[in-house]
Amino acid sequence: MSEPAARRLRPCLPGPQLSDNRSHELRLRSALEEELGESVSFPLSMLPPLARALPDSNWSPWATVVHDICGWRLAHVSATEPGPLLGLAVDLGSTTVVFYLIDLAGGHRMGNRSYPNPQRAHGEDILERILFARKEEGLLTLQREVVELFNSAAQELCSAASAAPEDIHYVTVAGNTTMIHFLLGLAPSHICREPYLPVANRIEPFKPGEIGLNINPEGCVYCFPNVGSYFGGDLLAGIIASGMHKSDEISMLIDVGTNAEVILGNKDWMVACAGAAGPALEGGILACGMRAQPGAIERVEIDSATREVTYRTIGGEAPKGLCGSGIIDLLAAMFAAGIVDPTGKLQPSAAHGRIVEINGTPAYIVAPAEETAHGEPVYITQSDIKNLIRSKGAMYTILNVVIQSVGISFEDIDHFYVAGAFGNYIDPQKAITIGMLPDMPLERFKGLGNAAGEGACSALLDRQVFSEVEEVCSRITYLEMNVRGDFMNQLTAALFLPHTDLSRFPTVRRQLAHLF
Amino acid sequence: MSEPAARRLRPCLPGPQLSDNRSHELRLRSALEEELGESVSFPLSMLPPLARALPDSNWSPWATVVHDICGWRLAHVSATEPGPLLGLAVDLGSTTVVFYLIDLAGGHRMGNRSYPNPQRAHGEDILERILFARKEEGLLTLQREVVELFNSAAQELCSAASAAPEDIHYVTVAGNTTMIHFLLGLAPSHICREPYLPVANRIEPFKPGEIGLNINPEGCVYCFPNVGSYFGGDLLAGIIASGMHKSDEISMLIDVGTNAEVILGNKDWMVACAGAAGPALEGGILACGMRAQPGAIERVEIDSATREVTYRTIGGEAPKGLCGSGIIDLLAAMFAAGIVDPTGKLQPSAAHGRIVEINGTPAYIVAPAEETAHGEPVYITQSDIKNLIRSKGAMYTILNVVIQSVGISFEDIDHFYVAGAFGNYIDPQKAITIGMLPDMPLERFKGLGNAAGEGACSALLDRQVFSEVEEVCSRITYLEMNVRGDFMNQLTAALFLPHTDLSRFPTVRRQLAHLF
Repeated sequence: MSEPAARRLRPCLPGPQLSDNRSHELRLRSALEEELGESVSFPLSMLPPLARALPDSNWSPWATVVHDICGWRLAHVSATEPGPLLGLAVDLGSTTVVFYLIDLAGGHRMGNRSYPNPQRAHGEDILERILFARKEEGLLTLQREVVELFNSAAQELCSAASAAPEDIHYVTVAGNTTMIHFLLGLAPSHICREPYLPVANRIEPFKPGEIGLNINPEGCVYCFPNVGSYFGGDLLAGIIASGMHKSDEISMLIDVGTNAEVILGNKDWMVACAGAAGPALEGGILACGMRAQPGAIERVEIDSATREVTYRTIGGEAPKGLCGSGIIDLLAAMFAAGIVDPTGKLQPSAAHGRIVEINGTPAYIVAPAEETAHGEPVYITQSDIKNLIRSKGAMYTILNVVIQSVGISFEDIDHFYVAGAFGNYIDPQKAITIGMLPDMPLERFKGLGNAAGEGACSALLDRQVFSEVEEVCSRITYLEMNVRGDFMNQLTAALFLPHTDLSRFPTVRRQLAHLF
Repeated sequence: MSEPAARRLRPCLPGPQLSDNRSHELRLRSALEEELGESVSFPLSMLPPLARALPDSNWSPWATVVHDICGWRLAHVSATEPGPLLGLAVDLGSTTVVFYLIDLAGGHRMGNRSYPNPQRAHGEDILERILFARKEEGLLTLQREVVELFNSAAQELCSAASAAPEDIHYVTVAGNTTMIHFLLGLAPSHICREPYLPVANRIEPFKPGEIGLNINPEGCVYCFPNVGSYFGGDLLAGIIASGMHKSDEISMLIDVGTNAEVILGNKDWMVACAGAAGPALEGGILACGMRAQPGAIERVEIDSATREVTYRTIGGEAPKGLCGSGIIDLLAAMFAAGIVDPTGKLQPSAAHGRIVEINGTPAYIVAPAEETAHGEPVYITQSDIKNLIRSKGAMYTILNVVIQSVGISFEDIDHFYVAGAFGNYIDPQKAITIGMLPDMPLERFKGLGNAAGEGACSALLDRQVFSEVEEVCSRITYLEMNVRGDFMNQLTAALFLPHTDLSRFPTVRRQLAHLF
């Protein structure tokens, strides 16, 4: 039976008499400790309301406890019934921040909202924001912006649920190491340069007022810890969401992005690694790359006979560009159709006239100008493809280095989780075709959706998660990719479609036998 | 080896490198935990200074930890050597407040000062102050006055020691239940009426800012808990000072005052009791009673042959009145000389003309007008004596009830501690003569001096004391005198000098055989 991070109780206390003249504090403490089976901390600030609430409630007050650094702590006591007992889970992404309002008593979600991260005004890229943080007032500005977002999101979600921000007694935040540093006003200057030191790995729960959060002032804020500068609390939350840390079976969890982050393990052991995969997989630096927004091409197929291109856009709108899942689909389809060869070179002979020269470089037209929203064609260039192959090769190599570090092979992996928004949209078959993901049975792949958000929610609803996270942190072995000499050699072998060693991709070899 | 409640360490941390890129926080935490052998809490507020102090100190920062509710907590970290590590112990009496400044690193006292409790402006008697606390702003006023005293005393003691109040990282406070309630701003209204409920028995350590103390803001304040409305932290501190809670031998600890408080026990068991003895023993309500200040008669003898009175005053000044120890001496001497009979009645025939009528009541002249400071005689009236006998009888009865409750007799008591300023001045032989204290070998009596202050000091220098106090609290059995039917019967028997049952006072019977 899971127990949420905050609980409300209404004990019936024995009335005072000469033979039982314990103080108000001890009377309530004994009742709560008996019900919770654990000691409960009573901070000084709780004593005045407690002294009023006990007699005024005829010795049956409402008491709210939160699970804090050293166990349960009394956070609210009153003679009349307070508002609902709420928690707020936050996936603090550098691009998007997602908030979930949770009814902790009932254990269900009351609503959720996504907002763009307001810090994007100082740079889409995290590095730009780190540079901005070094300016005078820079760090303070970044902190203020995100705290204000928390406050307005809490207000909006509560209003929609006919509740008040003061009803929120617990906040859990999953974010990468830099995002958490900004939230807490911690200087991130050592994060991005060797040897990549965060200020803190483990953030102890704190009171909301310490960073200016307008929820119940006696509530509690928990940030998922980080394992390193490039292995943040978002990934730990993802591990929790996957459940891999409690399973006998071996799982691999990856988060695909500019940085590729990988965790491999089970309930007994866990290794992790993060490395630069380059921004190509997210569409970032591609000529026609774009975020996964309405108008982005998210699915692409090329008919093997007619070479006709069909695509689907987000929201069904006229296309504006290519997002991550569309790019992987496209490269896989072009490869399967022979439009690019295993080295990534465009093959005009197989392209049915879709390869043209744009700004002096060969490019393959996905959507011609007359079909698009902006009247310009959507295409992929030869150099885009080279970048893509470098990124997918880096991704595969990171996975392979992790696998090798523990002496197993991909076949030994029972579950392969793909986290991030990307994880829900990526087509594993296509990612295998280009050699980005290992050639494993498709049913072992599972998109985790917003794993960080899911992990943050589950911590609110099961306080056991806090110790699970601690336990995972202490158990995880982090491989610093930058200190591994074999990475570059392996990468070179992976800069082919799907790989120089085709025996690693038997299903691809079988399906595309005509190419080899 | 005792360990103080706050410690300063200067660990040598391994410098950061790719193969050890733990955060600043984890790097320092690991070093401190290894040195302390316990986990250390790192509050959010410590992270920014920590991020600066580690590199600036070339990975060898100064760190101060305080022992808080759930173990060690980081309270200060810097790249340069901070001021001395100080603690402040406070005996928060209703009349006098005594402060001790302690060097926690060296383990010695740097100074101490006493101040009158400023709350006396609202009533010498605690009850008057409780009534004042009920008025608008009353409680706030009482709290502000005592907190201001703490702040000015800390400032003065630090100045004298060439230190600053920010150097104080720990404060321990021993006071009775009401004094602690005033200090913390807790309404004392239930303390003084049946069934005598304090707001809180156990006060968890808190940060100084919570009550406006101007010491190091990350420091810690500890108040000794109370066992009940009439059994406060001052007595628990006294138990600690006596060491009775760690001894195999049986001890009795009494604090004599308007309320007589008694603890009986050893390392295995402990019973406690408090009861009204009346203010007579402190000189409070006597015609010529006064506090133990210069000019107070503190010692009295009456020559058994000549009936000549000799006395000694505090400071050797001309007498102004009688303080507690003088009163007990006087009654014992008058009884031994036959000037009062066992029922307390004045015997003019034995008084050599010193019994006169003052304001219509018989009185015995201790110091004639020509010897005194104010030109009025110092005397004791017949009704003073009746009051005294009632008080000493109550005192003895309380001791007896406690003894009986555990089925032992006074002979079984190995150590008899008398706490309070009174305890240092009272002459046990005289107190036995009047039947206030039991007739035990004199060497078993020991004045404890300022036991509350001593206990507060020892908690600063030995953090083990905090758990000893918790343990004593959980083990102590409190006898509510008001619910014991046998008290009044026993009291009646004790309203004689020394007692109706002379077999209880064999040495008195032997010495004063001529009277019986």
